[in-house]
Amino acid sequence: MWVSQSVAELQGSLRSCWKSSTSIGLVPTMGALHEGHRSLVRRARNDNDVTICSIFVNPTQFGPNEDFTRYPRALERDLALLEAESVAGVFVPTPVDMYPSGFDTRIDVGELGRIIEGARRPGHFSGVATVVTKLFNLTRPSRAYFGQKDAQQLAVIRQITRDLNIPVEVIGCPTVREPDGLALSSRNMYLSPSERLAATVLFRALNAGRDAYRQGERTNAQVRDAVTVVVQSERLAVLDYAEVVDPDSFSSDDPCTDRSIIVIAARVGTTRLIDNLTVSAEYEHQGPRTLHRQQRTGTLPSQL
Amino acid sequence: MWVSQSVAELQGSLRSCWKSSTSIGLVPTMGALHEGHRSLVRRARNDNDVTICSIFVNPTQFGPNEDFTRYPRALERDLALLEAESVAGVFVPTPVDMYPSGFDTRIDVGELGRIIEGARRPGHFSGVATVVTKLFNLTRPSRAYFGQKDAQQLAVIRQITRDLNIPVEVIGCPTVREPDGLALSSRNMYLSPSERLAATVLFRALNAGRDAYRQGERTNAQVRDAVTVVVQSERLAVLDYAEVVDPDSFSSDDPCTDRSIIVIAARVGTTRLIDNLTVSAEYEHQGPRTLHRQQRTGTLPSQL
Repeated sequence: MWVSQSVAELQGSLRSCWKSSTSIGLVPTMGALHEGHRSLVRRARNDNDVTICSIFVNPTQFGPNEDFTRYPRALERDLALLEAESVAGVFVPTPVDMYPSGFDTRIDVGELGRIIEGARRPGHFSGVATVVTKLFNLTRPSRAYFGQKDAQQLAVIRQITRDLNIPVEVIGCPTVREPDGLALSSRNMYLSPSERLAATVLFRALNAGRDAYRQGERTNAQVRDAVTVVVQSERLAVLDYAEVVDPDSFSSDDPCTDRSIIVIAARVGTTRLIDNLTVSAEYEHQGPRTLHRQQRTGTLPSQL
Repeated sequence: MWVSQSVAELQGSLRSCWKSSTSIGLVPTMGALHEGHRSLVRRARNDNDVTICSIFVNPTQFGPNEDFTRYPRALERDLALLEAESVAGVFVPTPVDMYPSGFDTRIDVGELGRIIEGARRPGHFSGVATVVTKLFNLTRPSRAYFGQKDAQQLAVIRQITRDLNIPVEVIGCPTVREPDGLALSSRNMYLSPSERLAATVLFRALNAGRDAYRQGERTNAQVRDAVTVVVQSERLAVLDYAEVVDPDSFSSDDPCTDRSIIVIAARVGTTRLIDNLTVSAEYEHQGPRTLHRQQRTGTLPSQL
């Protein structure tokens, strides 16, 4: 497995793939890999001749008061995991290699970047769109894989790929969950044991929204209320937002339809978590995947 | 010569080139082709296995009070010119094909998009950057060719290509001029005969700036004053700006250096024209190219 730490090295590593029309599957990550990432890698490996991964904690998608400096970094463990998954190569650039002096270009994703999660994290999706465009141009993959957990991020990436005619197939993969429903996230590492228990409230609240929909509630307000009540019952959690939205435009869906998804953000202690679920269980192409206990990675697993 | 009028057709036309690693030279244009464009095509043909051209009057780079609707269109003549130049194919998309319903992504080029020409045409360079990125992704050329006449546009395209790691070599080609020095531009067609004579004031003024530099003037103000005096002597012309700038950042160069360029914009009658010249004649890699009289294209030439 090659590891390229600069743009120039990466070009050397990939040149033969490009020349031979080998299909490349790209899994862009910020590292601190967990079973969610592993599921992306496995899907990529299944679909492509070679699978590559990028590990880059992208500074431009963090706000000034966000967790850029303390975002978990675990490069050696990540590389061991990727090697075990037979990944062909890993791109681990430095910030100065991605954003050299004089860098001054950003991708504006319009309304989608300003609503819901974008309203709470100004500039976040522009930072995501810009770095993903760079990674696509640097690696020229046939397909790229992203988790559905970051649903609005996935919508942003689908939008820029379509709007800018980027020749990459964007594939969203199902959220991987702990047995108790908590969506895997590198940020779960921040949670204390009591917060970790409380954090299941997001998935419980989403299911309450889904139940309301199944029982015939069709307005955004009704479904949102069902979600909100559950979050309010959890002492350690503070709801940021709960909305029923169209999975592409993220505009509020009123009335809700089977395509709608419920998106939620909440603070558990000092940790901000997000999650989402389709209102209709039938619409979900693949039910929420849960891990067997021995695969749990919310706390550092020993087997990696 | 193939002519593709949609994105889907274009992909079909280019697929075999992409598969066989044929080098593609792209000349993006807004049509109403003249000898300046022809020089780009010839350079592209010299450098690449196949040369393709796009013709698209891009609505998003025109301001609300600019000349989008009356911008000259001459598709049949353009196609005949390109066929005579042995171009492999031409992409002539419709606005709705380039900007379908829901399109909402723009490339922000930062400071470079807000200064000099960008200050007078808000959103112009963002529109240019976005459409050029789309054309690059749609055609995947090895090299793309742009005229140095639109110097700030060239700087913008170099910036986005570098910042977004777009795998295209951007090549700037010398401005082609009429025998009396007027830089070729599709907008020259707007000029009445008396305005056409007056329009030479831009090139005369640029040369006055170059003379001032040769005589030892080194401040932006001194060179600018020499340019301004000449424009003021022409009754039909109104200066918009004259600046001495760095050719990459377009920040004002004070003191000027041999790399600096003088950029000018002026209104001649109702027509807004731009032009530029290096302050140092020695720095110009290739002197201003002039046309033989039978090649003039400022008015519709009969030979095309």
